[in-house]
Amino acid sequence: MSNASRPVARQARGDATRSAILSAAEQVFAEVGYAAARLEDVAQVVGIRRPSIVYYFPGKQQLYDEVEADIFTAMHQFVTERMQGANTPLDRLLGLFDAWLDFLVHRPTAARIIQRVVADPTPRGEDPVQFSDTALRDLEGILASGVAEGSFREVPAVHILNSVAAGALFYVCNANQLGTGRRYDPADPATLASFRAVVHQQAVAVVLK
Amino acid sequence: MSNASRPVARQARGDATRSAILSAAEQVFAEVGYAAARLEDVAQVVGIRRPSIVYYFPGKQQLYDEVEADIFTAMHQFVTERMQGANTPLDRLLGLFDAWLDFLVHRPTAARIIQRVVADPTPRGEDPVQFSDTALRDLEGILASGVAEGSFREVPAVHILNSVAAGALFYVCNANQLGTGRRYDPADPATLASFRAVVHQQAVAVVLK
Repeated sequence: MSNASRPVARQARGDATRSAILSAAEQVFAEVGYAAARLEDVAQVVGIRRPSIVYYFPGKQQLYDEVEADIFTAMHQFVTERMQGANTPLDRLLGLFDAWLDFLVHRPTAARIIQRVVADPTPRGEDPVQFSDTALRDLEGILASGVAEGSFREVPAVHILNSVAAGALFYVCNANQLGTGRRYDPADPATLASFRAVVHQQAVAVVLK
Repeated sequence: MSNASRPVARQARGDATRSAILSAAEQVFAEVGYAAARLEDVAQVVGIRRPSIVYYFPGKQQLYDEVEADIFTAMHQFVTERMQGANTPLDRLLGLFDAWLDFLVHRPTAARIIQRVVADPTPRGEDPVQFSDTALRDLEGILASGVAEGSFREVPAVHILNSVAAGALFYVCNANQLGTGRRYDPADPATLASFRAVVHQQAVAVVLK
């Protein structure tokens, strides 16, 4: 390696460490929640020491914020790509719920983190939707277009969020919490397809005129 | 007070302290979750010292178990009383969802604790449904009776739980988490009535043949 390439190599190594910290932090926050998570636990998962984390992220709150931002950015991007073929408001609504479900099934740590945010009694910071606002706007935009077009009833978007969208989080998180005879694999194609059918029935029943 | 009544008074005072500890513990576990909760915090809410808690409950796990047991026992009792007039499987199913919703609206700490249990990645102890099993059986019994009678489709009970029943928990927990313009009061009669209507539509759409 030439002297000139050294800073580049160092930069790449730094980026890889930063990524590994974020990924480990998502695991730890999903497992025990923000309040109980410790930077030492994250460091241990990565195989580095606590001060190395502080070099990249000044504290637990900043690390958590980056994790939450990354989850909602990735989810919005996934949803946007998946919905490109959908045109009618109903197709877009079902496409949105499908995309959220698929995203969460393949990133259960994200589901647990969102589930924990909902459980917290007081919104964190000045703006509780600093990271989740894109998801809420995606839903609100589709519902408003359906109402404007005349095919949807006027149902509060928060009701649809709490009733239909909440299901994807429960489906992913509850798999091992319901006892031996009720255990399931959320990623199993047949189980996922049958849950998706339930979500579609719900959505149609609640929004269509 | 006569000498003879002293043990009775002491017993009553002990019961009141035990109740106060349980109620404070429910608050603390709802607010920060099991992992982050400390017996010191519970003691502070009650206005006693940590050793006084340990006199009644040997440790955090035992205290938590009593709280969770009390939640599910009270919920099952509330549901049973409320459903006495309901006869058809559909009336009983809607009655069950109504009762869960009303119970959780009036005991939001219970909703947050259940929401946190669902978020945990690994079931606690040997039997994750040690306390919640009555709720699951209430739902399964009604669904089975509707299928037997011929009016319900065969939909896995866990799907109904994750899709329809999950809504009540989200409705209660999400009130302050969706940003300024979307905030609501879950106990407001009109808001509650409109959410209840959504839950009924979902239930009918998913289970009825």
